[in-house]
Amino acid sequence: MDDVLDLSALRIDAKRLRRRIDELADIGPIEGGGNARLAFTEVDGSARDLVVDWMRDLALDVHIDAIGNVVALRPGSVTGPPVMCGSHIDTVRTGGRYDGNYGVIAGLEVVETLSERGITTHHPIAVAFFSNEEGARFPPDMMGSLVYVGGLAIEVALDTVAADGASVGDELARIGYVGSLPCPGPAPRAFVELHIEQGPVLETEHRTIGVVESVQGISWQEITVDGQSNHAGTTPMRLRHDAGYAAAAIAVFVRQLAGEIGGAQVATVGAIDLAPNLVNVVPARAVLTVDLRNTDDEVLRDAETRLSAFLEQLERDEGVTIATRSLARFEPVTFDARVVQLVERTATSLDHSTLRMPSGAGHDAQMLARVCPSGMIFVPSVGGLSHNPSEHTEPADLEAGANVLLHTLLALAESGGVID
Amino acid sequence: MDDVLDLSALRIDAKRLRRRIDELADIGPIEGGGNARLAFTEVDGSARDLVVDWMRDLALDVHIDAIGNVVALRPGSVTGPPVMCGSHIDTVRTGGRYDGNYGVIAGLEVVETLSERGITTHHPIAVAFFSNEEGARFPPDMMGSLVYVGGLAIEVALDTVAADGASVGDELARIGYVGSLPCPGPAPRAFVELHIEQGPVLETEHRTIGVVESVQGISWQEITVDGQSNHAGTTPMRLRHDAGYAAAAIAVFVRQLAGEIGGAQVATVGAIDLAPNLVNVVPARAVLTVDLRNTDDEVLRDAETRLSAFLEQLERDEGVTIATRSLARFEPVTFDARVVQLVERTATSLDHSTLRMPSGAGHDAQMLARVCPSGMIFVPSVGGLSHNPSEHTEPADLEAGANVLLHTLLALAESGGVID
Repeated sequence: MDDVLDLSALRIDAKRLRRRIDELADIGPIEGGGNARLAFTEVDGSARDLVVDWMRDLALDVHIDAIGNVVALRPGSVTGPPVMCGSHIDTVRTGGRYDGNYGVIAGLEVVETLSERGITTHHPIAVAFFSNEEGARFPPDMMGSLVYVGGLAIEVALDTVAADGASVGDELARIGYVGSLPCPGPAPRAFVELHIEQGPVLETEHRTIGVVESVQGISWQEITVDGQSNHAGTTPMRLRHDAGYAAAAIAVFVRQLAGEIGGAQVATVGAIDLAPNLVNVVPARAVLTVDLRNTDDEVLRDAETRLSAFLEQLERDEGVTIATRSLARFEPVTFDARVVQLVERTATSLDHSTLRMPSGAGHDAQMLARVCPSGMIFVPSVGGLSHNPSEHTEPADLEAGANVLLHTLLALAESGGVID
Repeated sequence: MDDVLDLSALRIDAKRLRRRIDELADIGPIEGGGNARLAFTEVDGSARDLVVDWMRDLALDVHIDAIGNVVALRPGSVTGPPVMCGSHIDTVRTGGRYDGNYGVIAGLEVVETLSERGITTHHPIAVAFFSNEEGARFPPDMMGSLVYVGGLAIEVALDTVAADGASVGDELARIGYVGSLPCPGPAPRAFVELHIEQGPVLETEHRTIGVVESVQGISWQEITVDGQSNHAGTTPMRLRHDAGYAAAAIAVFVRQLAGEIGGAQVATVGAIDLAPNLVNVVPARAVLTVDLRNTDDEVLRDAETRLSAFLEQLERDEGVTIATRSLARFEPVTFDARVVQLVERTATSLDHSTLRMPSGAGHDAQMLARVCPSGMIFVPSVGGLSHNPSEHTEPADLEAGANVLLHTLLALAESGGVID
């Protein structure tokens, strides 16, 4: 690194950052200002093409692996594993424009800031986007980063089939993102993910930078209830085996459970599908999902156990059959203490208020944490909204987060830095 | 009528009856032996073609009206309004082979039995099938008979749009069943509908013939809950406006309500649709249906009022917006005492055990009851199953019901009979 420059004064270009965010949001727009770019769809392909074009315009060396993860490398003074940042560019069906995208584009902004000042870091820097972080079409979420770190076999991931019958492998080939690099991929020197909070804590506490210490454990289950379809007018209540009622009772129980456990526990029934789903037929079948999260794995396991006991009781009470299938199960993750401290120190040195906090959502960084020192930087989400077209982060906060990322990456890319 | 014949010994041909039932069930078959012939679809059209062919083969005079109701006339010794029987041939998505179809085909069997013996009744006899009795695609149910008796304007019925965007008028034209006769149609002399019970009462009580005295009142509502979509991991429980939870709470309340009211009250949430319906997103919107039925309109109104109060409380508690729309509302119907007595007497004279009972389901006969003396004959449903491919009625019971229909129609078609 060129010691003549005063690196502490270096700042990203906030307008350029926002311009790229807006340009990416033009792909797969939905009413209300958000995006629908489900993983491995054509709009996901178009978004990938745009970001890869930006990477090549910045003279980065673009690598694509077998699950479609894209890693763009910027050489350092020495070869070896890069200091990596990144996130994802797929969205849920009713996603916002910042979730994931912000972290990827901020990484490109860091690269462009370094390049226009002619700065070469000691270690290489990489900007990555990982495939199918949301898992909204193909479970599990964080699929790409999970495969990258060897937590899921590439063959299994490619064979995953969506509710619409499509497979990951076929869809990835269709959009042209089956890369030549094998999975798992090489461990970076360190990994930092900049992301919107997606919750209301930073806004409520009036802090600008969230220093993420950990990620909540996640338990996703699909529950299938088989009852008996029958005429809604002629079947006495006592003779029913109503799969729809069972699904509703589960959703109400899950809400109660979160209340009883309290603290950081959240519980959500996000999807319910009834069959035949007609006004005058007692539902024969219900398929629903339960999403349970806690920072304490013991408490999370207790929630799972209590749900399981409730399902057994419900089977007996209603004369229905209930089957469960795990869609995803991730233990809580604690980030590397050195990276957490570096993020905090960097934000403070840039005069931003900080808050140490857990992440309620799953993120690619928790996968990378399996193979290298990792951490995350959060910026506030207005109204705590996310997975919603109204998702918003103030321009000043977008700028602040990107500058914290810039100086965190610079510190990590130094020789003799925090990771050595 | 030819007085030389001993009419009391006349019986329908049970094998021919079952053969026609099986032949009709071959159109739109589904796994498990049932049928999917939603009203105004192509398979509904094919089923209509088959039944109209049978009517013409029996030398009946086929009339089709503007909503696609089909009435086949067999002349009597005198002209004037016919004694009509009939039902419907559309099904729900997971329907059985007897619901509706049995009553129409038994009517044809009565006609064929009379014709092969050369019997001319005093008054004409008619066999009808009414359009869209199920209302599974286009609400309300009993649409065709409701239009026939002038309870719904033909223009309004034709403009009804399904969830899939299709209109009744367009679909009716597509399958070629826009008839030339105006709606409402002429009142018959009397109307009798033979139908499977679709409930477990006759089987449980070991009776062969249900003498239907009344039809439960029906209240169908569509409830739309608007909440706020948000990230399922980062949104504390207390800050949620979860439309999916609200839908589940309504379904659980509705079950409780039926239990508290007791008696004949039934209550069903048959359909729930969440948006965006994803595992990791708090649902923004839920659309669900509530089906409430009771033989006592005052109790039914009370159930509606209590549901409405619950919805208001739920709006306040959850910070969601709830809108309701009536899909159908029919008051309980009491059938003509003379027809009810005739059915009972006829069944007894044929040595069948009988039970006076209400109908839990809505039927075309309740519409015809607005314009002429009407009644219904029930036969047992095995296991009480209906709106289910496993719907079944024993051959002996099918035969018994058709013979009761035959002699009930004969009595009504006499001169100086019960209706004069």
